[in-house]
Amino acid sequence: MRKMTQHNLEDAFAGESQAHMRYLIFAEVAEKEGKHNLARLFKAIAYAEQVHATNHFRELGNINESVKNLDMAIAGENFEVEEMYPVYNNTASFQNEKGAVRSTHYAWETEKVHEKMYKEAKEAAKKGKDIDVEKIFICPVCGYTIEGELPNYCPVCNTKKELFKTF
Amino acid sequence: MRKMTQHNLEDAFAGESQAHMRYLIFAEVAEKEGKHNLARLFKAIAYAEQVHATNHFRELGNINESVKNLDMAIAGENFEVEEMYPVYNNTASFQNEKGAVRSTHYAWETEKVHEKMYKEAKEAAKKGKDIDVEKIFICPVCGYTIEGELPNYCPVCNTKKELFKTF
Ligand SMILES: [Fe+2]
Ligand SMILES: [Fe+2]
Ligand SMILES: [Fe+2]
Ligand SMILES: [Fe+2]
Ligand SMILES: [Fe+2]
Ligand SMILES: [Fe+2]
Repeated sequence: MRKMTQHNLEDAFAGESQAHMRYLIFAEVAEKEGKHNLARLFKAIAYAEQVHATNHFRELGNINESVKNLDMAIAGENFEVEEMYPVYNNTASFQNEKGAVRSTHYAWETEKVHEKMYKEAKEAAKKGKDIDVEKIFICPVCGYTIEGELPNYCPVCNTKKELFKTF
Repeated sequence: MRKMTQHNLEDAFAGESQAHMRYLIFAEVAEKEGKHNLARLFKAIAYAEQVHATNHFRELGNINESVKNLDMAIAGENFEVEEMYPVYNNTASFQNEKGAVRSTHYAWETEKVHEKMYKEAKEAAKKGKDIDVEKIFICPVCGYTIEGELPNYCPVCNTKKELFKTF
């Protein structure tokens, strides 16, 4: 693919992904306001943006088999763990922005787990196998990710186990 | 908020939104390969990235009541309709990149509808009301968005009505 078109599709993928995310967030607000139809509109359009993002991503040649998809996932998590979140967390501390210190700390701690889980998944996928995981739990406050047994409180943000989302 | 921290959180929101989207896409691939646990891992971690994106977005002060959220949604759609997709579609044609011509055309046609629907929703929200919409249908191929009655074929990409997703 020509480089300028590639650059544009990468930018469009970023834009669609962020529109999708904003609409999921706005749907929750509408739900809380009792505007259930508006929430439904936001969710429907969030899905439309997912279709657009997927189309651009496919044209970029980024949809491959799972072994290769896991390589991309591991590279992204590793960058966040080793570079992005340490720097953003450090800058937030330096500028005394407490909210940003917290939101980058929560993410940083979580991405460490993600990198590890994806690396294990890649070992299985290389052998052509599915992974062997029990229930996966996600903390709705900090995103912390745990497989198997859940402690009573989130080890990162102290949220009660009852509030975790199960996959 | 200090400007450099704001800049970092905006970048982190973009990164988390794209990670979320990639994992949704990778989950579909894993599902097709019969790797149901891997698909579940991708979906769980996609949700964790949604939590991170939401935290950064909240710290940025971007979560407001629906009237204001709709302003942000309308501004985004309008930019895509009037600036981004016309230019990217034109560049893809100029560089003879047929796949990118198609994926940007699909999105462009859809965003026109989104802008219109969000503007109508804003009129209702300004009066403190929910919107009055029937079923909303999304084309899984091009993202085209229709409320109420569905034609037999997608007006943008010709996909059969039976394949549309209902919200
Ligand atoms: Fe879109
Ligand atoms: Fe992650
Ligand atoms: Fe937590
Ligand atoms: Fe994350
Ligand atoms: Fe849109
Ligand atoms: Fe379509």
